[in-house]
Amino acid sequence: MRTFEAGNYDVIVIGAGHAGVEAALAAANMGAKTLALTINLDMIAFMPCNPSVGGPAKGIVVREIDALGGAMGKVIDRTHIQMRMLNTGKGPAVRALRAQADKVLYQQEMKRLMEEQPNLSVHQAVVEELIIENEEVTGVITQVGAIYKAKTVVITTGTFLRGEIIIGDLKYSSGPNNQQPSIKLADNLRDLGFDLVRFKTGTPPRVNSNTIDYSKTEIQPGDDVPRAFSFETTEFIVDQLPCWLTYTGEQTHQIIEENLHLSPMYSGMIKGTGPRYCPSIEDKVVRFNDKPRHQIFLEPEGRNTKEVYVQGLSTSLPEHVQRRLLESIPGLEKAEMMRAGYAIEYDAMVPTQLWPTLETKKIKNLYTAGQINGTSGYEEAAGQGLMAGINAARRAKGEDEVVLSRSDAYIGVLIDDLVTKGTNEPYRLLTSRAEYRLLLRHDNADLRLTDLAHQIGLVSDERHARFTAKKEAIENELNRLRSIIIKPNEMTQELIRSVGGSELKDGIRATDLLKRTEMNYDLVAQLVPSEVELTEDIKEQIEIQVKYEGYIEKSLQQVDKLKKMENKKIPEQIDYDAISGLATEARQKLKEVLPLSIAQASRISGVNPADISILLVYIEQGRIAKVSS
Amino acid sequence: MRTFEAGNYDVIVIGAGHAGVEAALAAANMGAKTLALTINLDMIAFMPCNPSVGGPAKGIVVREIDALGGAMGKVIDRTHIQMRMLNTGKGPAVRALRAQADKVLYQQEMKRLMEEQPNLSVHQAVVEELIIENEEVTGVITQVGAIYKAKTVVITTGTFLRGEIIIGDLKYSSGPNNQQPSIKLADNLRDLGFDLVRFKTGTPPRVNSNTIDYSKTEIQPGDDVPRAFSFETTEFIVDQLPCWLTYTGEQTHQIIEENLHLSPMYSGMIKGTGPRYCPSIEDKVVRFNDKPRHQIFLEPEGRNTKEVYVQGLSTSLPEHVQRRLLESIPGLEKAEMMRAGYAIEYDAMVPTQLWPTLETKKIKNLYTAGQINGTSGYEEAAGQGLMAGINAARRAKGEDEVVLSRSDAYIGVLIDDLVTKGTNEPYRLLTSRAEYRLLLRHDNADLRLTDLAHQIGLVSDERHARFTAKKEAIENELNRLRSIIIKPNEMTQELIRSVGGSELKDGIRATDLLKRTEMNYDLVAQLVPSEVELTEDIKEQIEIQVKYEGYIEKSLQQVDKLKKMENKKIPEQIDYDAISGLATEARQKLKEVLPLSIAQASRISGVNPADISILLVYIEQGRIAKVSS
Ligand SMILES: Cc1cc2nc3c(=O)[nH]c(=O)nc-3n(C[C@H](O)[C@H](O)[C@H](O)COP(=O)(O)OP(=O)(O)OC[C@H]3O[C@@H](n4cnc5c(N)ncnc54)[C@H](O)[C@@H]3O)c2cc1C
Ligand SMILES: Cc1cc2nc3c(=O)[nH]c(=O)nc-3n(C[C@H](O)[C@H](O)[C@H](O)COP(=O)(O)OP(=O)(O)OC[C@H]3O[C@@H](n4cnc5c(N)ncnc54)[C@H](O)[C@@H]3O)c2cc1C
Repeated sequence: MRTFEAGNYDVIVIGAGHAGVEAALAAANMGAKTLALTINLDMIAFMPCNPSVGGPAKGIVVREIDALGGAMGKVIDRTHIQMRMLNTGKGPAVRALRAQADKVLYQQEMKRLMEEQPNLSVHQAVVEELIIENEEVTGVITQVGAIYKAKTVVITTGTFLRGEIIIGDLKYSSGPNNQQPSIKLADNLRDLGFDLVRFKTGTPPRVNSNTIDYSKTEIQPGDDVPRAFSFETTEFIVDQLPCWLTYTGEQTHQIIEENLHLSPMYSGMIKGTGPRYCPSIEDKVVRFNDKPRHQIFLEPEGRNTKEVYVQGLSTSLPEHVQRRLLESIPGLEKAEMMRAGYAIEYDAMVPTQLWPTLETKKIKNLYTAGQINGTSGYEEAAGQGLMAGINAARRAKGEDEVVLSRSDAYIGVLIDDLVTKGTNEPYRLLTSRAEYRLLLRHDNADLRLTDLAHQIGLVSDERHARFTAKKEAIENELNRLRSIIIKPNEMTQELIRSVGGSELKDGIRATDLLKRTEMNYDLVAQLVPSEVELTEDIKEQIEIQVKYEGYIEKSLQQVDKLKKMENKKIPEQIDYDAISGLATEARQKLKEVLPLSIAQASRISGVNPADISILLVYIEQGRIAKVSS
Repeated sequence: MRTFEAGNYDVIVIGAGHAGVEAALAAANMGAKTLALTINLDMIAFMPCNPSVGGPAKGIVVREIDALGGAMGKVIDRTHIQMRMLNTGKGPAVRALRAQADKVLYQQEMKRLMEEQPNLSVHQAVVEELIIENEEVTGVITQVGAIYKAKTVVITTGTFLRGEIIIGDLKYSSGPNNQQPSIKLADNLRDLGFDLVRFKTGTPPRVNSNTIDYSKTEIQPGDDVPRAFSFETTEFIVDQLPCWLTYTGEQTHQIIEENLHLSPMYSGMIKGTGPRYCPSIEDKVVRFNDKPRHQIFLEPEGRNTKEVYVQGLSTSLPEHVQRRLLESIPGLEKAEMMRAGYAIEYDAMVPTQLWPTLETKKIKNLYTAGQINGTSGYEEAAGQGLMAGINAARRAKGEDEVVLSRSDAYIGVLIDDLVTKGTNEPYRLLTSRAEYRLLLRHDNADLRLTDLAHQIGLVSDERHARFTAKKEAIENELNRLRSIIIKPNEMTQELIRSVGGSELKDGIRATDLLKRTEMNYDLVAQLVPSEVELTEDIKEQIEIQVKYEGYIEKSLQQVDKLKKMENKKIPEQIDYDAISGLATEARQKLKEVLPLSIAQASRISGVNPADISILLVYIEQGRIAKVSS
């Protein structure tokens, strides 16, 4: 292969899936001269699995991405077919938005954003090799021999690295949905000494809507209230399409049990580890074999297609068994299968090889993000992509790194979990992974992250000004309500009675009245009207901040403690072998993870409080030693 | 591989490119239970090359497809970004419509049509093997071991058979645009004894619109008049996008000449034969090296993308040379290449192995259509697909075959050329290939073919009634004009003078007045108004039929002669070896092509008039012999 010099960039992003698009857009948006390389331009931001964005924890990530100036929220706002707020009856920490995507429109819109982004070039090309000089990456080589040089490189190759599709007893080399896999780059990463693991994930069949008997299913409409992920969205899609709910039954489960010997997962043909929280139907039936039925959601793949995604039926059973499964589900008895479900196995990086910036420890200026880091899910990929893009651009410009902590964002939790704990199965975000989940709400993502985004150049002055106005309006109104005492006059008592509350004995602070379960902002404001008009999201914010004040306070105190631990930095040149008293496992793990702070060290599984004490003492002494020398 | 029975169909269509979609839709539309199998459902009706439909000869094919109840015209009418009537200044035989497509919308709309078509199942699957019993096809086997049985099978695998992408010194196994190629099916066809040839075609780079300097190019807007391909279209797209024209120059040509040794076409790496009428830029520069410049059209790939197709720059030169070529073209100096051009080599059937129905001679009930038969072009593929679909469905239902003759349609010319003459390079339709081109106009495609389409069940009664009304209106008005004598009164002379004609000496038949160059229908109708309101297309029809009456007459006489020759059938069981006096080449060719009529025999290259005379005599005797025996 003849090679040739094809250009110099600040940042090169390999891949344009959900991680790659965010990385490339962010880097370019920050002023870095950026090149995105992808195997197939027609597949930018392709959703190989469920046509939806958001949901528990993931929906909060989308809001965080948006607050940081990312694209996912904006694009799904323009291209969804349905949007719903989940868990509206529950506490604010678990509420989340979920949208069904028009899959093709989503891809098209994301592609258009990339094409229109200044500083960004998008090129269809297969990267085969990284150029490494002195343990630093300096560029990439593509299949046609093009050499692109760059200050930093971000790899976001998803499930393509040595991808293999498996269905029944068939296994063949392939990327998702019969795309070209990426084999040489996987070899190259292995040759460079990276530890790769074999993971797998799966997808269910798609059926033709015209062949579904919807009368046997339950309708799942979108919300009537207009909703959006992005702070910038002002136009809402009103015309929504419903999804439909049905169930597997005894017959389904019996078919699976009878055919388990044909399942590549149980025959031993699939070696990769699958995602615990997106199990295949055969997994569900085996693991929860007392459950008489499982939910099956029928989700349209777009406005302009009859393809319907059969959520809940992910499987790699042979095609004829898949047909029988469909036949056993109410409403799908005659459903025509347009695509069969399949599993895909692929190479992933062991993520403890990364710094919290997503830079690899082994090769300087090389970042990895997305499914390649052992996660699963579009939002998890996008969140990492954004952070890797930010750090790659800042490194290229000689600026400091940006790391979100576990108390800043779900994205912080995600990345910290990956680089600190690693993962031995495809990692998915769950609200239970966040210890400060009352702080990491979807409604306050903008409040948490917009200042940072503005500071690093990802949010415009105009948007930041609008944001600041919102923040001030919240502050002002909170201060006003905190300072007003509501008297127990007739009007007040009457209003309280009307919502079934108990009458006031005495004057009460407006915020304290608002804290009562039966009260909400609008009711309180009837008694003490604000002089300025407040939007719904501002009112919601005030309500949440007042009603959950106690819990939020407590969380913030915990965060303070965490911050202190995080401020106890571990010097880079620490020699764990020189610290006597550390347990062997702790020593090994510390050497692998190379935590940057005592806080991070304490989260490593296998590192116990006793080890942390020894480490603390050692570092204190070390500091003394340093100072005295 | 475990196999399993996956269903029984009347017709199976392998592939859902431009040929496959027409074949499947037509068969299903005719009531045949049809299954379409394709490697990737996201790529249905994908345009791997120019984002346009129609043009000289091809535009007439689209009208013919529409008249026969096919989909291409309807779909492009709904999804174009620009439409133009070409050659409006020239005779009616060479006029043609050409549309720029919104590529992704076109795919989506075609996919939707397929999903909504009754009797049609669409399934993503890779066919690896045909099931043959007693030299008849009875089904197919897919990659996952699914056995689908059918009465007839249509193969429309385009450029996928053993596809190889070539660019510079790189060559790798691939379908178009990095899709999965089809290798096992190619092996299977070879094993079945089919003659396959190696052809190649190529595509130019795509660039980002935002990086083009349009001020250095000429605008090419669409027509202001609303236009449509389909008889059924009633809504017109008014908002059109322009294309742009620029040129290669001396510098471009110099770069090519200097780098010719790097071209896989000249280095010997490409073995397949390329299309003479869609040459690569390196071909053009070498073959027409006295031409100082070549046209380059910049064609947007859709409304929602910035990708622009660089028509005229098809090339397989290495990527770095492609970049330099772009830099040398006015307006493209800074153009960012999003995809590089490439060539693709693939296996094609030698089409003389087919009957005029597109059924293979070797294997009964097996049809092939599209690029697999050695053609290039979407319209050529679609036209064949439609005819193969029709014949496959009719065979499945036990009905007679349908063959268009050279005087019926361009599609007839195309198929007759293929099966009679074969082709030693990718075949493209040109107006010059049709001997009756004055009859095969785009404006009368409906008049030529709607009755047939209605008869075989592809055009609804409602449409046929509308069509019949149109036909009658034309007849009535023609008869009226033929019977009216226009007097040379003042009003008439005045009108004639006003358009610069010479005054009447005597009364004149209205049709004769219309024949005058300076006259048109509306002028004549001012003198002798019709009582019924006539649409523009009816007026156009009357004008053409009157003005070109003489030429049309002559063509019709030739057609009569042809028909006579076509009626001289050659018996199927003829033994050419038994005919003494035939030239050796003629004998060989006759045995290969197995012509069905003397007309077809006379068109075989290498079969001379002397051979035809001998053949005629032999058959006459044979007939006598038969009758007497
Ligand atoms: C079959 C399947 C089922 C799934 N099921 C689920 C599920 O149930 N739940 C869930 O949460 N998630 C699921 N996922 C995962 C989800 O699709 C991914 O997490 C998400 O798409 C990952 O985004 P990414 O950007 O990391 O990678 P991808 O979206 O895979 O994008 C990778 C990109 O890298 C490019 N690329 C690869 N190699 C190269 C190279 N050498 N040179 C240039 N470009 C390259 C590709 O062209 C592509 O653009 C599934 C994925 C698949 C394939
Ligand atoms: C790079 C390139 C450049 C071209 N340049 C030009 C040009 O300049 N001018 C021009 O007129 N034409 C050009 N063409 C040709 C034009 O694209 C084709 O003529 C047209 O698309 C052919 O249509 P088709 O239906 O025959 O095949 P395609 O459109 O190729 O469709 C083939 C279908 O078969 C399916 N398939 C293949 N194998 C299997 C299998 N084993 N099982 C199931 N499905 C299968 C595929 O998935 C696909 O749906 C070019 C094509 C390519 C690829």
